[in-house]
Amino acid sequence: MSDLWDIHSPVEIKQLDIPALEKLCAQLRKTMIDTVSRTGGHLSSNLGAVELTVALHRVFTTPQDTVVWDVGHQCYAHKLLTDRYERFSTLRQQDGISGFPKPSESEHDAFVTGHSSTSISAANGIAKAKALTSDDGYTIAVIGDGALTGGLAYEGLSNAGRSDDRLIVILNDNQMSISRNVGFVARYLTHLRSRVRYVRWKQRVRTALSRVPLLGRPFNALLRDAKKRVKRSLLTNTSFFENMGFYYMGPVDGHDLKDLHQALLAAKTVNRPVLLHVETVKGKGYPFAEKNPDTYHGVSKFDPVTGQAPKAGDNFSARFGQALCQLAAEDDRIVAVTAAMKQGTGLTGFAEKYPTRFFDAGIAEEHAVTFSSGMACGGLLPVFAVYSPFIQRSYDQLLNDTAIMRNHVVLAIDRAGVVPDDGETHQGMYDVAMLRSIPGTTLYAPCNYKELELHLRQALYDTDGIAAVRYPKGAEPATLADYTPQYGAYDYFPDKGRDVLVVTYGRLFGDVQAVCHKRQTNGRGTAVLKLNRLLPLDTEVVCVAKEYRCVLFIEEGSLSGGMGEYLGSQLLLAGYTGHYAVRAVEEILDACTTAQGLHRLGLDADGIATFIEEETRRAQEAVHE
Amino acid sequence: MSDLWDIHSPVEIKQLDIPALEKLCAQLRKTMIDTVSRTGGHLSSNLGAVELTVALHRVFTTPQDTVVWDVGHQCYAHKLLTDRYERFSTLRQQDGISGFPKPSESEHDAFVTGHSSTSISAANGIAKAKALTSDDGYTIAVIGDGALTGGLAYEGLSNAGRSDDRLIVILNDNQMSISRNVGFVARYLTHLRSRVRYVRWKQRVRTALSRVPLLGRPFNALLRDAKKRVKRSLLTNTSFFENMGFYYMGPVDGHDLKDLHQALLAAKTVNRPVLLHVETVKGKGYPFAEKNPDTYHGVSKFDPVTGQAPKAGDNFSARFGQALCQLAAEDDRIVAVTAAMKQGTGLTGFAEKYPTRFFDAGIAEEHAVTFSSGMACGGLLPVFAVYSPFIQRSYDQLLNDTAIMRNHVVLAIDRAGVVPDDGETHQGMYDVAMLRSIPGTTLYAPCNYKELELHLRQALYDTDGIAAVRYPKGAEPATLADYTPQYGAYDYFPDKGRDVLVVTYGRLFGDVQAVCHKRQTNGRGTAVLKLNRLLPLDTEVVCVAKEYRCVLFIEEGSLSGGMGEYLGSQLLLAGYTGHYAVRAVEEILDACTTAQGLHRLGLDADGIATFIEEETRRAQEAVHE
Repeated sequence: MSDLWDIHSPVEIKQLDIPALEKLCAQLRKTMIDTVSRTGGHLSSNLGAVELTVALHRVFTTPQDTVVWDVGHQCYAHKLLTDRYERFSTLRQQDGISGFPKPSESEHDAFVTGHSSTSISAANGIAKAKALTSDDGYTIAVIGDGALTGGLAYEGLSNAGRSDDRLIVILNDNQMSISRNVGFVARYLTHLRSRVRYVRWKQRVRTALSRVPLLGRPFNALLRDAKKRVKRSLLTNTSFFENMGFYYMGPVDGHDLKDLHQALLAAKTVNRPVLLHVETVKGKGYPFAEKNPDTYHGVSKFDPVTGQAPKAGDNFSARFGQALCQLAAEDDRIVAVTAAMKQGTGLTGFAEKYPTRFFDAGIAEEHAVTFSSGMACGGLLPVFAVYSPFIQRSYDQLLNDTAIMRNHVVLAIDRAGVVPDDGETHQGMYDVAMLRSIPGTTLYAPCNYKELELHLRQALYDTDGIAAVRYPKGAEPATLADYTPQYGAYDYFPDKGRDVLVVTYGRLFGDVQAVCHKRQTNGRGTAVLKLNRLLPLDTEVVCVAKEYRCVLFIEEGSLSGGMGEYLGSQLLLAGYTGHYAVRAVEEILDACTTAQGLHRLGLDADGIATFIEEETRRAQEAVHE
Repeated sequence: MSDLWDIHSPVEIKQLDIPALEKLCAQLRKTMIDTVSRTGGHLSSNLGAVELTVALHRVFTTPQDTVVWDVGHQCYAHKLLTDRYERFSTLRQQDGISGFPKPSESEHDAFVTGHSSTSISAANGIAKAKALTSDDGYTIAVIGDGALTGGLAYEGLSNAGRSDDRLIVILNDNQMSISRNVGFVARYLTHLRSRVRYVRWKQRVRTALSRVPLLGRPFNALLRDAKKRVKRSLLTNTSFFENMGFYYMGPVDGHDLKDLHQALLAAKTVNRPVLLHVETVKGKGYPFAEKNPDTYHGVSKFDPVTGQAPKAGDNFSARFGQALCQLAAEDDRIVAVTAAMKQGTGLTGFAEKYPTRFFDAGIAEEHAVTFSSGMACGGLLPVFAVYSPFIQRSYDQLLNDTAIMRNHVVLAIDRAGVVPDDGETHQGMYDVAMLRSIPGTTLYAPCNYKELELHLRQALYDTDGIAAVRYPKGAEPATLADYTPQYGAYDYFPDKGRDVLVVTYGRLFGDVQAVCHKRQTNGRGTAVLKLNRLLPLDTEVVCVAKEYRCVLFIEEGSLSGGMGEYLGSQLLLAGYTGHYAVRAVEEILDACTTAQGLHRLGLDADGIATFIEEETRRAQEAVHE
């Protein structure tokens, strides 16, 4: 009964003793390492949160009690303990277990996370709902110190601290903010860590408790009083969380099951919002990850015995970083900004080469944009490198703090379009539609490395205002490696027949061109127009397209508000009367590989061919009607 | 020379003595009260910042030194001192002086604000640019305590505190956070205020300085040392700002010119980021405003002698508040959320009637949405009332924290479309385009009070996921007072000729209908289709529209990404071959009245008539070609 594979409900671990729980923790770790070594995933944070998760499920009972996992990089143990052991090998695969909390997957998952710093606000709301509906369950937010660098976490603390609800915020302090040296959080937590351990005053409380004969109200009063006294004597400078309105407890050793258990029990008795500070070690239990937590933060497949991962091939992120370094060598106005995505966006080299011109804002995309806009005011050339699903965290900063002044800020939007493995919260589908509603934005969509370099240069030197370059995760399509980028806003490959025109952009151009070329050789004239610059759309594009009997738009991005709709409206406004159709993204895509995702969306070569086939037939039928 | 009207550059006040400056302050206040009583504006905060602004311009020299005014509710004195006295009577009027900082208006305005909590991040960027370009100017951010409740301010502090740049953050503490009781900031600043005044330790430092024979490095070292010693003995619990990396100074009496002057001089010597805590009184110098700072925070015209404002008439905000109260009486799951816009969104009554079901998040729109989504998870029916230009601060929280889970959160989007007086940062032009890119959103656009009530009910009970109701600032159009709303997604007023169809939504419907009716009586058949629900767009709308030779869309919102483009693309996809044109918003609109704004955008009755006239003629020509 005490083996991980025998546990089908988290209540089954409540009766286990410490040695049995320790065995369980070891099994959890082994399962994670085995699985992630095959599937890829977020390893370090998950290894660090094993004991904490076990302790949470011992003391609390989900789903009556609710746990919100911030970001979700630490939810694997929770998933394994809540009846997902058997399916865990499907982690981050199509139709498999998501790498992030997902209410549709299990009643034990309360809230979709994936984006950082949301858990306290969400838990505040859930706890408030419990309070207003006389539900006496607890709500727990588990948030890493890295996520505390985001402004939303601060807003959440400040608001949640005002409530009287049964809310426990567990600060899973794994020194993420330290390793990135992000300001306040790093500094403040370093200070707290140096304090006397929570477990010591807890022992004094226990001594005080041993004198209490009865439970209930007097017990609680005494407990509170004892705590207060002990706290006053031992804890100092916990003012940030206390001023937030939280009862601060900590730090607790996050790998000591007994300490965790007692701390959580104590937190339950406080009757107002509690912040429990737990110290954990990223990568705990897997020496390679303990030594290089960043390397194993998010990993692809690796050899669990040697810790070796296959060497990552060339990719857009790396090429962006190299290109920016080159440009920066020529122009010392260029500065680079990231929001805790240095490695992911390919800026490690830049940061080493130009440390005074590199800025990691922490998980603070809003600051990153407004800060960049300020630097632009001062004559610098800021480049903010960010993932597509995260640039949407800066909408107001782009519009109000940048676009209105036409400050020149370059956005390097990585992870655009289908993003493998991480699922619905990490797909890069919305940047185009979002940027379309921000006035004066220039937007480039390179299809290969050479074009990325060209567009980056154009974004820096040929534009003003916001200039974005969007590109996908991973490598350039093999079919496009030899494609030579053109300088204009679009590339036009006319056929002879003026029959069908397919318009597209970005990496899809490779498959679109291949499909159209094949059609051409079959005698069916199909021209291709590749948008190099999406915004502003060159008016010539409409002129060219108007001449075709059938215009098709194929897009790796949201249909609603996207370029396909835009060109459609422009064509109609220009009096176009031919056949028009758009293939774009209409669903929220779950975890999958890039190939699977493109296939599912009908954006792989087969899907594109079928779409063109069907729509040209429809166009034909319309003529014959 | 010492009168306000004689000052054409802020350097002219540097040599004035204290009595002359005090006279100047009185003149500044009188000018503000006189002007705002005629133009409306933000009075309380501006009155409170008079001495601070004068002291800033004495100690610093703009534009070499840069001041970023957070939100901008305190920039009137700055405007009056920087050569805008003569034009000040045009405040907030078309082609007049903006109520907010505006670089295009003066080189002394460094950064567009208007939205809260951005100043520290912007100043951080500007200071960084100065540092990297060897410019030894200072950068000063002036931020109110209310704005400190926004997460971006926290991100800004945390990041700016890591720099070594010449950055001074002035916390203009006018107890705004207290009056709204917004968590941490209120609690923490109350604590700081109780401390010994900065000016006392400053005197000790001065004593120490008097012993120093030479200026320069040793002077600074001693100053630092003296400060450290004095600080240690007198200041406690300034850890939040200190942990942020700032040198904390304060509190200083923000109405004592001498103290302010000395504090600013001292701040200049610190050589790392300084946070200077200044206490001011909202409404200072105008008894009515001192007594009721909230009433005079943002005011319309009023009688400067009696302080009386003409009674505000009925308006959408008030009607929303009343409707929500009624609904809440029937359904105790309904809760209301605001982000420091209780009065503006009409929720004062709700807050009084249902204090436990009302939540003011402070200036924290991100938290407001995620918190609401959490409450929705817990079975409540949250309604977040927010201005259109501020809902864009929650883009990621809407998409990632709400839409993906299809949590049912109702957005009451006030100030949609043309917003009078406040200018470019407060226009409500982007909500429709923004919400179009958030999957699964329902969006209603009521045209009068009755319809607002209907749509609010529909948003609560007929939908899931995000359901938004957008309505303008001010009163329902007189022409629409008697219009009886219909339950369906659209209203269709067919003409006999099937010739021209005009599609519109919201308050424009009144003028569109009037114009079309007039055309009808002139024998030119013009049908009108009024969208009640914009999203999802009823497929019938396309079917109806397709039958017309000419379809025109008229929209009080952004063209790019808006409904007009959307319907255009849908029509083309459906094979429509007639004439289509859209009248929507393509420019960033400066301050004006609603009537002026609609006129300028071609969205008043005249503009609509002309647009229809021209486009029907064009449609005719196209046929005859």
